[in-house]
Amino acid sequence: MTQFDRALIVGVGLLGGSIGMALRTRKLAKQVVGFSPRGNSLDPAIALGAIDIGANSLAEACQGTDLTIICTPVQSIADFAERCFSLMPTDGLITDVGSTKQSIIETIAKSLASKNFVGSHPLAGSEKSGVENAREDLLVGKLVVITPDRNSDSDIVQIADQLWQSLGARTLRMSPAEHDAAVARTSHLPHILASALAASTPADLLPLAASGWRDTTRVASGGADLWRQILEENRQPVIKVLEEFASDLRQWLIAMRSGDGKQLEQLLLEGKQKRDALGN
Amino acid sequence: MTQFDRALIVGVGLLGGSIGMALRTRKLAKQVVGFSPRGNSLDPAIALGAIDIGANSLAEACQGTDLTIICTPVQSIADFAERCFSLMPTDGLITDVGSTKQSIIETIAKSLASKNFVGSHPLAGSEKSGVENAREDLLVGKLVVITPDRNSDSDIVQIADQLWQSLGARTLRMSPAEHDAAVARTSHLPHILASALAASTPADLLPLAASGWRDTTRVASGGADLWRQILEENRQPVIKVLEEFASDLRQWLIAMRSGDGKQLEQLLLEGKQKRDALGN
Repeated sequence: MTQFDRALIVGVGLLGGSIGMALRTRKLAKQVVGFSPRGNSLDPAIALGAIDIGANSLAEACQGTDLTIICTPVQSIADFAERCFSLMPTDGLITDVGSTKQSIIETIAKSLASKNFVGSHPLAGSEKSGVENAREDLLVGKLVVITPDRNSDSDIVQIADQLWQSLGARTLRMSPAEHDAAVARTSHLPHILASALAASTPADLLPLAASGWRDTTRVASGGADLWRQILEENRQPVIKVLEEFASDLRQWLIAMRSGDGKQLEQLLLEGKQKRDALGN
Repeated sequence: MTQFDRALIVGVGLLGGSIGMALRTRKLAKQVVGFSPRGNSLDPAIALGAIDIGANSLAEACQGTDLTIICTPVQSIADFAERCFSLMPTDGLITDVGSTKQSIIETIAKSLASKNFVGSHPLAGSEKSGVENAREDLLVGKLVVITPDRNSDSDIVQIADQLWQSLGARTLRMSPAEHDAAVARTSHLPHILASALAASTPADLLPLAASGWRDTTRVASGGADLWRQILEENRQPVIKVLEEFASDLRQWLIAMRSGDGKQLEQLLLEGKQKRDALGN
């Protein structure tokens, strides 16, 4: 793909930092600028090679920028997209890495920014956070869902597609609503279960927690504020899958109470087959 | 510890095979014999160094044996313990690796074998199985819960303790009932949640399953027959934790439905703190 003149990363944490590193080492942008929404020092991000320079204001950050990637918590994304749009040259791509898409895109659809915005969700999160955990190859082999809507300029959508592919990821297009319903099942429900399971374990039993407990609860270490925002943004789909899961658990309780070994083994087999289909 | 003359492993799979390898490489037994309850060939176990020789019958297997470790699915353990006891020299240690303890020990308590039996549970399982996945160091640094009851000979309990420690594990004594209540929370509930979560995910969404889904569901790959037996053997404690977990999930649903962000963040924080307490 053609090289960007100046790429801006808003929020230089795990994902933003990893994208910055990859843009720099793959020479996809002549310059990578970082902006910290909370005013944190960007010196560590520069030292780690995640960005070339830091900007002190958003106006400074957006000057001459033809690519802006917003890597903030989800509830700030729409606002930053609109502010960056008003400060950037008008032909640039604005994208993001948010875990939910529908409510961000609904907000942006009301502004002129929507022509230049393509929602993106790299499935490359982690319970870790911070630029100190960023890695140049974080996106390699990962899937990035892109969710253009009818306002998105088709050239801009193409550029978004190429951007993620140039960073080593595969891309998949979905509608924002399809995306949100899907991740409610594949990401938000697992997070709730992991968190509820961890919380429900008495502290004096933690020494008995072997690899099974550790794997099953690992994602619960994710930031509570970040995850509150994700769950709030994806409220209806999450409520739906939680209700369905509660009903699934009742089947397990019925099988356990009745001592129906066949039913129990059938339930276990369905879980095993679905899990085995995916490999390690 | 003093070397055993002849150690018998009944059921040479992941755990039995790993224990055999460790007994051999650490020279803790002059000879390690394997017996296959299902009559499988023991040649692969010999080839992998898990046992010295295989026995064709249990009578042959038990001849001159002063250590028997039963590594079969849980519902066969009590029966094998009693049969081995009647065939072994009378001063030997009989132990096991079963994931539940109470019902095994209740059964054995009715027989003379109970003097020589010390229930053990190495917290070193895996969703993998089979001697081909066995590793000499599987128990190193792991916890083994031992659950002697009032019938267990105190010398025999001491030998069991030393055995697991010689294999590189730490040991912890609990009563069978305490153990079963604990693992219902730390192992059996996680397994049910992982299995139900995997089963509930539509196949067409599996390509969206990132590392979070993979970690949370990993244990669901465990054998359905093995896990049916474990859940059946630990019925009441599992029912109790399932009921409590269903009630915890209702708190999440209430917070989601009411849109109470503070409550949601509090729930997420409790999960994070408990998970962070354990490290990776």
